[in-house]
Amino acid sequence: MDVAQVLHMNGGIGETSYANNSLLQRKAVSLTKPIRDEAIQCFYRETFPRSLAIAELGCSSGPNTFFVTCELIETVEKLCRDLNHRSPEYTIFLNDLPSNDFNNIFKSIESFKQKLRGVAGGFGPCYIAGVPGSFYGRIFPTNSLHFVHSSYGLQWMSQVPEGVENNKGNIYMTSTSPLSVWNAYYHQFQRDFSMFLKCRAQEVVEGGHMVLTLLGRRSNNEPSMNKSCLIWDIVAEALNHMVLEGIIREDQMDSFNIPLYTPSSSELELEVAKEGSFTANHLEVFETSWEDAYDEKRNDSKDYQITQFMRAVAEPLLVTYFGEAVMDDVFRHCQDILADRMSKGNLVHVSLCISLTRTS
Amino acid sequence: MDVAQVLHMNGGIGETSYANNSLLQRKAVSLTKPIRDEAIQCFYRETFPRSLAIAELGCSSGPNTFFVTCELIETVEKLCRDLNHRSPEYTIFLNDLPSNDFNNIFKSIESFKQKLRGVAGGFGPCYIAGVPGSFYGRIFPTNSLHFVHSSYGLQWMSQVPEGVENNKGNIYMTSTSPLSVWNAYYHQFQRDFSMFLKCRAQEVVEGGHMVLTLLGRRSNNEPSMNKSCLIWDIVAEALNHMVLEGIIREDQMDSFNIPLYTPSSSELELEVAKEGSFTANHLEVFETSWEDAYDEKRNDSKDYQITQFMRAVAEPLLVTYFGEAVMDDVFRHCQDILADRMSKGNLVHVSLCISLTRTS
Repeated sequence: MDVAQVLHMNGGIGETSYANNSLLQRKAVSLTKPIRDEAIQCFYRETFPRSLAIAELGCSSGPNTFFVTCELIETVEKLCRDLNHRSPEYTIFLNDLPSNDFNNIFKSIESFKQKLRGVAGGFGPCYIAGVPGSFYGRIFPTNSLHFVHSSYGLQWMSQVPEGVENNKGNIYMTSTSPLSVWNAYYHQFQRDFSMFLKCRAQEVVEGGHMVLTLLGRRSNNEPSMNKSCLIWDIVAEALNHMVLEGIIREDQMDSFNIPLYTPSSSELELEVAKEGSFTANHLEVFETSWEDAYDEKRNDSKDYQITQFMRAVAEPLLVTYFGEAVMDDVFRHCQDILADRMSKGNLVHVSLCISLTRTS
Repeated sequence: MDVAQVLHMNGGIGETSYANNSLLQRKAVSLTKPIRDEAIQCFYRETFPRSLAIAELGCSSGPNTFFVTCELIETVEKLCRDLNHRSPEYTIFLNDLPSNDFNNIFKSIESFKQKLRGVAGGFGPCYIAGVPGSFYGRIFPTNSLHFVHSSYGLQWMSQVPEGVENNKGNIYMTSTSPLSVWNAYYHQFQRDFSMFLKCRAQEVVEGGHMVLTLLGRRSNNEPSMNKSCLIWDIVAEALNHMVLEGIIREDQMDSFNIPLYTPSSSELELEVAKEGSFTANHLEVFETSWEDAYDEKRNDSKDYQITQFMRAVAEPLLVTYFGEAVMDDVFRHCQDILADRMSKGNLVHVSLCISLTRTS
């Protein structure tokens, strides 16, 4: 089965995977808060909207679903108090793939509103809607959004690129992938990200803002590096071990690729410039340590905890392909590799955060 | 436990119960089609909208969820072809209580669009959102809707009225209820329905339309009649039998009331006039036979099939109150009562369909 299909089947695990680990997601979210705050304040000051439509793309279903929305409303409410304005009306569109657990989100709306009352004091009327569908197509009416946010969804492409059969031993583009694989991944990213921009350009009003955070890489020449490492590098290494041990068939490993692309900042900027509807106000490259996922208060070891986090992200994708039976084994290998890598230095994720304004 | 709470816990069985029986619901829906067609055509001809926002209130989750939406789009598309207009953009807001199964709806969007392609040929872009919440409060932004539809949701009130403790032997207002119970039910209906109109008045644009179908009664003086009978009359009779048999405690039966009110057409019109934001264009009283729920092609008897339909509607409300153990017994009694009543004549439901325009 195609991995993109698996992604779709698994409730958009791709678009939502980082939300599985609230510690890691929230660390990145707190680092990018100033960028979002500036964007929403700028939009408010320029338009004084009576109604504010915010979309959270790849909202997942869990403790992070409402996290950024809550902060954004808090920021707007503070600004309204400072300016002595009446609160606007908020419409919150929560988007993810149709297989996401929207029922669970809808049951947590009351506790979200309660939390919001706690942090923001009073706030304007707030209407919430769930919008199922891939953000690589149109999902909202024309000129219906004022602010779009997405956190760790956009490194997942709409599908595994074609022409990556010779990516032996790897599961996405890494330093040992052939150039043809590298190109196939890059072109798929270009197609998907430009389609994303084109769709949002029609949905976001002129003067509207988008803040997008995704996994990325520091430079164009380093597809995957030793310091900046993705959980998928460790998963690939574990799978390769198991091929050598005869537990996984080599052809099975060779035909497994994931639709993940981590662009550089210049690759991101190039697509924005080519599409032409948005202006980039700000682009930040930042690192988060894997150790942010470690909770000292828990009794189990650091490498066990981080492996559990990896497992939550990776297992849904792996299980459909390699079967339930080998999963414990895969993550035992992952834990060994992880312990070894961590003993040699701090592991980090590189992320990009880009803030855009809809021009004309 | 309060029955209104039970309603909320059970995925809005109240607002969605009739959708459990697609035969009965569709019969009523086909009878009211001319009223909806006229309303949507009238709106289109007066405004030539490029974007059309339709809300389905109490959408449930099943074969009926998209039924009316599909028809409405078909009607608009036909009109566009006749007038040689380009199709508008559609936004469909599907509303029900937060416990409704929205996940199931979202998974069926593709088959809805496929069906729509079949009946309407080409159609404009169609965006779908789920909106959880009670329609007795605000659930949509100000001036955001052009057309509102609701089918068999509005006979369910927001709560069981207070002051109905002396409604012995009954479970809602019937001919043997004391006047105080009758008044308590009527006042709750007035509060709820006027709140419904007040909320929709803010959400629907000037010139927008609403078509509402609900259970009702023919005249003000007949709270419940022998010919027009609700499944709840039969359920109440069954429960009373079981009190006599000592299976259900009398105090348990006495404290059970459901938040159901079946208004007369003049009661409906009075609230519309009092609230003042809508003009009633059309009000129709119509009957559907219980036998519409009977499928001759199936092997089982008519009274068994209709009892099964009653059970689907009533059991979720009864089980929380009276417990799982007595359910088979309740519906065995219901089937006996039903067979007896049907042998004496045709049983019908009385429904009201009102078509409204948002004035100023």
